[in-house]
Amino acid sequence: MAVPGRLASVYSELQTSRLDVSLPLPSVLKKSFNVVDGPPSSAAGNPEEIAKLFPNLFGQPSAKFVPGDSGESAGKTLRIGVVLSGGQAPGGHNVISGMFDYLQERTSGSTMFGFMGGPAGIMNCKYVELSSQFVYPYRNQGGFDMIRSGRDKIETPEQFKQAEETAKKLDLDGLVVIGGDDSNTNACLLAENFRGKNVKTRVIGCPKTIDGDLKSKEVPTSFGFDTACKIYAEMIGNVMTDARSTGKYYHFVRLMGRAASHITLECSLQTHPNITIIGEEVAAKKQTLKSVTDYITDIICKRSEQGFNYGVILIPEGLIDFIPEVQQLISELNEILAHDVVDEAGAWKKKLRSQSMELFEFLPQAIQEQLLLERDPHGNVQVAKIETEKMLIEMVETELDKRHREGKYNGQFKGQSHFFGYEGRCGLPTNFDSNYCYALGYAAGALLHSGKTGLISSVGNLSAPVEEWTVGGTALTSLMDVERRHGKFKPVIKKAMVELEGAPFKKFQSMRDDWALKNRYVCPGPVQFIGPTANDINYTLKLELGVQA
Amino acid sequence: MAVPGRLASVYSELQTSRLDVSLPLPSVLKKSFNVVDGPPSSAAGNPEEIAKLFPNLFGQPSAKFVPGDSGESAGKTLRIGVVLSGGQAPGGHNVISGMFDYLQERTSGSTMFGFMGGPAGIMNCKYVELSSQFVYPYRNQGGFDMIRSGRDKIETPEQFKQAEETAKKLDLDGLVVIGGDDSNTNACLLAENFRGKNVKTRVIGCPKTIDGDLKSKEVPTSFGFDTACKIYAEMIGNVMTDARSTGKYYHFVRLMGRAASHITLECSLQTHPNITIIGEEVAAKKQTLKSVTDYITDIICKRSEQGFNYGVILIPEGLIDFIPEVQQLISELNEILAHDVVDEAGAWKKKLRSQSMELFEFLPQAIQEQLLLERDPHGNVQVAKIETEKMLIEMVETELDKRHREGKYNGQFKGQSHFFGYEGRCGLPTNFDSNYCYALGYAAGALLHSGKTGLISSVGNLSAPVEEWTVGGTALTSLMDVERRHGKFKPVIKKAMVELEGAPFKKFQSMRDDWALKNRYVCPGPVQFIGPTANDINYTLKLELGVQA
Repeated sequence: MAVPGRLASVYSELQTSRLDVSLPLPSVLKKSFNVVDGPPSSAAGNPEEIAKLFPNLFGQPSAKFVPGDSGESAGKTLRIGVVLSGGQAPGGHNVISGMFDYLQERTSGSTMFGFMGGPAGIMNCKYVELSSQFVYPYRNQGGFDMIRSGRDKIETPEQFKQAEETAKKLDLDGLVVIGGDDSNTNACLLAENFRGKNVKTRVIGCPKTIDGDLKSKEVPTSFGFDTACKIYAEMIGNVMTDARSTGKYYHFVRLMGRAASHITLECSLQTHPNITIIGEEVAAKKQTLKSVTDYITDIICKRSEQGFNYGVILIPEGLIDFIPEVQQLISELNEILAHDVVDEAGAWKKKLRSQSMELFEFLPQAIQEQLLLERDPHGNVQVAKIETEKMLIEMVETELDKRHREGKYNGQFKGQSHFFGYEGRCGLPTNFDSNYCYALGYAAGALLHSGKTGLISSVGNLSAPVEEWTVGGTALTSLMDVERRHGKFKPVIKKAMVELEGAPFKKFQSMRDDWALKNRYVCPGPVQFIGPTANDINYTLKLELGVQA
Repeated sequence: MAVPGRLASVYSELQTSRLDVSLPLPSVLKKSFNVVDGPPSSAAGNPEEIAKLFPNLFGQPSAKFVPGDSGESAGKTLRIGVVLSGGQAPGGHNVISGMFDYLQERTSGSTMFGFMGGPAGIMNCKYVELSSQFVYPYRNQGGFDMIRSGRDKIETPEQFKQAEETAKKLDLDGLVVIGGDDSNTNACLLAENFRGKNVKTRVIGCPKTIDGDLKSKEVPTSFGFDTACKIYAEMIGNVMTDARSTGKYYHFVRLMGRAASHITLECSLQTHPNITIIGEEVAAKKQTLKSVTDYITDIICKRSEQGFNYGVILIPEGLIDFIPEVQQLISELNEILAHDVVDEAGAWKKKLRSQSMELFEFLPQAIQEQLLLERDPHGNVQVAKIETEKMLIEMVETELDKRHREGKYNGQFKGQSHFFGYEGRCGLPTNFDSNYCYALGYAAGALLHSGKTGLISSVGNLSAPVEEWTVGGTALTSLMDVERRHGKFKPVIKKAMVELEGAPFKKFQSMRDDWALKNRYVCPGPVQFIGPTANDINYTLKLELGVQA
């Protein structure tokens, strides 16, 4: 079987130096342990519907590893598969390394398969058998290129059938699905399916996404978020120093993160920009594009009065999706463009409702074009591709011109746009993500070894030294609610959005007015692997864990 | 006097940890030293014209510090000014710290002035008196915000007069100009002017620019280049890992660097992209936009045949300025647009020569618009603002479509564009830039103390440990040639462009075909300040110094 390119590549000195860094384990995983089950679980919402959808798994307790001497599994060898699902996140390779090392150390003689290219690899039975030699070069390295990833889903009866065939063909005892909310939902459906059909293969999930929107009480964070935020914050801090040195640019920085604004909020806490737009707040306050523009423009005017004609503004990737009037416009556009051709004369526009038409006309031309052209294969607008940062620059410029003519603003405004996305998804994982992922993977191996299924690997107490981290598994069904689609209930792990009552937002809220007018810029600098800052964890996690006020 | 914002800002842990890192000095600067003059110097070109332009300074020898016990200046106190000129480069604060420490340690009781906001600060006599307390927070920090920078020039008789008044008012013994080629040329003119008028103020330059195009035999590199390239290379390496993991994007990365392609070449040597365009080669081979597009498209097609529908392509900021036909088009456009209005009907276009018209029509529409709209206050096209990366994506797409229709290409192509610029100019300086700048500044202080003027601070033997670095000053006139402008000879320090016969390009040339089709991606990772990679220097410097083949 062809093996992807990592082995053909050349390592930098830093990559090489990271290879042999030893990965600490939580102390409970270092010796023999027992699994203790908690009380029966429920669901995040609509438990009776979840119970119907998962008759074999609903109500499973959380599992917790505690020191002990359970000999029950001793001597058992396992055949385990692993798959990476969805977008890259730093640390994925360490989850696999952790699983691999668990099997090596605790179930000698076991076999591990890496399914290639995401869930499609399971369905098509495309895999590579993992060996020490194969896994080793990926330790502490970024990317998902060891076995690559994919966005296919296993959700139809035919697809379940294919997965079952692979599970039987390889005689799999277990499968670990490393993915985001959707992938973990599907992992649970697969676990339910296998259990229902008496297939022995158990399924364990792992919380992956740089977006930070897969988390719960027992799963304090998704891996990759820490690294991605630190990489973006390095760049933002640099741009801030540049803004202050040059004194003449407003940098509009759009940050990856899909629907949720966790990345933007975390980067804001790390760097103290003058303005940060949090999508969840925009939605809660039912703000319009005009009111967001005015909010930015007001601060720019006040700063100008203080002599500052520069600044840094953070914008979440998903911003326009949070603005009710824009959602309305986009949904009308999707509807119209599914049937109509965009004629030069603009006859199609007349089908827009008057409010939407007004908004459309209010948008800069480039954005109008993006709304018409950037469409996915289903004909829907690809919101993530809309260059919101450029749109806001243009809209702010227009508003400033107006105020200038009215004698209300007399500054200079030059906007510079940035989008930080791909740069952060595949960076070398921070020490935190390296260690967290290794523990997640090791725990996933242990959960499968204990016969668990339908759980997501859960590592907690993350603000303490690694030795003191808690380890266990959480029932995936306990994270679920249902959504009604096409008249049917569909299980979903609800995306964890930024909570306006949560500690990270509260902290930001208490400081943003100060940051707006004073220049409290912080330059976090590049991620360090050695030295006094090497083991820092991100603010979101610290604040949510209550270890920082 | 108002002090800019650094003191109001909050430091990250890493910034704080960098403050107290001790800065090593070349051993010759640690004890008493003598200055040894070399033989008389000449000029980089047209020595007789340079001699006429610099009657008082031409022919000055280089100065070299050697261990010794020269007591001549002992006890003398100095009044010294410093100014930052032009774009930011990591390390500028350390040049100032080095000067400051020299004065503190060797000329106790001296006074140092920081001119605010670049050369304008000299002309307007806007300055801050530097104290330990004021300088300390900037040690090893990025940016130029301690005294900010500016792009004004001191070049007319009135401006020289203003500078002279400031020099006299502050009773300046010396002035250090930290800048690029233009700023150092002007520094030398100022030195000449002062000398000619018997003003006691001496002037010393320091080589600053991330672009890497200010260098000579005695000035091996300009500061900031090392840090900026490493920051860009971190991002490029991450994007490469992403490309390989995802398997579906071609990332077109445009890199800052103005006219020269040093940054692009260095980043290429650090990361091994599939395609790197070097402007100097494009110019030497008189390539057209079509031939550059074909070169890229050919490699994309070959890679597709091997199953790789992804890749990374580096493009220098100044690319289109290197293409003769584009230069011709731009110069015609500048001429036409200075007089004509761009009418919708396109009558203005008829004034283009047919070849230029053809090229204009060949360009993607967005680029046509940028050529017409992105103009500086003089009405000239701002080449650096043209989004060449997006232009090439469109042109490659068009060519691939054509080949697809002809049955010559059957792959998938998705372009992603990036521009890395501001992110690198103000990063925390690497250990190399921190140490190099500190030595440059310390040496500048020593040169002024020794009574030198019209020299540029020169630190050599840079591949050896700092202790073994050589230190001295090089006659600025020796770096100069003349250009004829408006019928007059004007002195210029010739930009050091990428030499196609130089070691860095040769190295790249010997490897690029391998990188094109195989995936030899290297991920340099974030700059480290501690650990095995912390003191690495860049490839360009290593190759030019002959310490790496």
